[in-house]
Amino acid sequence: MELSERQKKIVEIVKENGPITGEHIADRLDLTRATLRPDLAILTMAGFLEARPRVGYFYTGKTGSELLTEKIKKFKVHEYQSVPIVVKENVSVYDAITTIFLEDVGTLFVVDDQAHLTGVLSRKDLLRASIGQKDLSAIPVHIIMTRMPNIAVCRKEDPLFEVAEILIDRQIDGVPVVKDKENGLEVVGRITKTTITKAFVELVTDTDQHF
Amino acid sequence: MELSERQKKIVEIVKENGPITGEHIADRLDLTRATLRPDLAILTMAGFLEARPRVGYFYTGKTGSELLTEKIKKFKVHEYQSVPIVVKENVSVYDAITTIFLEDVGTLFVVDDQAHLTGVLSRKDLLRASIGQKDLSAIPVHIIMTRMPNIAVCRKEDPLFEVAEILIDRQIDGVPVVKDKENGLEVVGRITKTTITKAFVELVTDTDQHF
Repeated sequence: MELSERQKKIVEIVKENGPITGEHIADRLDLTRATLRPDLAILTMAGFLEARPRVGYFYTGKTGSELLTEKIKKFKVHEYQSVPIVVKENVSVYDAITTIFLEDVGTLFVVDDQAHLTGVLSRKDLLRASIGQKDLSAIPVHIIMTRMPNIAVCRKEDPLFEVAEILIDRQIDGVPVVKDKENGLEVVGRITKTTITKAFVELVTDTDQHF
Repeated sequence: MELSERQKKIVEIVKENGPITGEHIADRLDLTRATLRPDLAILTMAGFLEARPRVGYFYTGKTGSELLTEKIKKFKVHEYQSVPIVVKENVSVYDAITTIFLEDVGTLFVVDDQAHLTGVLSRKDLLRASIGQKDLSAIPVHIIMTRMPNIAVCRKEDPLFEVAEILIDRQIDGVPVVKDKENGLEVVGRITKTTITKAFVELVTDTDQHF
């Protein structure tokens, strides 16, 4: 539903000052009570406001959604990131596959001799390489990895939901958490779809603990 | 913070009847105002209640979390599920890998001739099979798949967050949405970590649209 400018103002006033009577809302807008009556009726029917006799109007229903949005927007990458698993550029595809199983992760990050991020290897990249190739232990990962600058990265103070958006928009499973160094990026963590799924579960289970 | 039984009762009363005065809360509990004063002070300081002069006590701060929890608990599998990609049991591992790339999914479901669910194939299963095996086109998928009854399934009316919990607890990427048939389960959808990540993003972006 689209609210008129005046209706938005009313909601703002009630949000800030509620419970507040119709008279007081009218005063603040320099309008008569009668002028506001249809707006207040619409806002009440639509569930934006709730009216209680002899007390006034409340901003109720939507507060939950707003608080929720604000709460989720405050989740930071560093509160959720896991340990990154990195391999060197000259490691073989075979060894990378072994590492991905040993560490039980979906994404590996590739670094050069200065430990700077140069590439990303997903299970999908490794699966693609593993079919049709003769000798996986003869191919270094830098041949098949997705390489800088085509890699999505995030930093520890970024909001978690922005990284979730990147995962969806770019159709990838994981993003490295990086720290800026003089000549490149150091990998300090990882955020994956598993991280986001865990955060989603915590949204439900953590709030149960208030009681 | 742990609330006493009496404090929990007060919160419940304010939640149901707020705004409500201290006197009225005391009446409902058959106690004096003076007895309740310390409890009300604690609940107000802790942010469970808010007091407004000449109006009474509100249940405010935690409503957001509660509404959030309730909202997320209402998300149903069928509102979020994607189309399942299925293969027959005698399809080769090579063809399954081709399918996983063509369809761009992370999980395939395996069915028998009656189209009943018999197994699940993840990228991880296929990657494991693809290294060390000589001829992937000679191995049928039923050799390497995870098979019934060791498969986690969900149904379309299940809460989405319960499936998210299954994904985390069992460390899997996807779960089939099934329908009960006379002699087995029909696969009608899929829920994956991508589904949950999308739902997480929507929590933030959808609520923005109220204004």
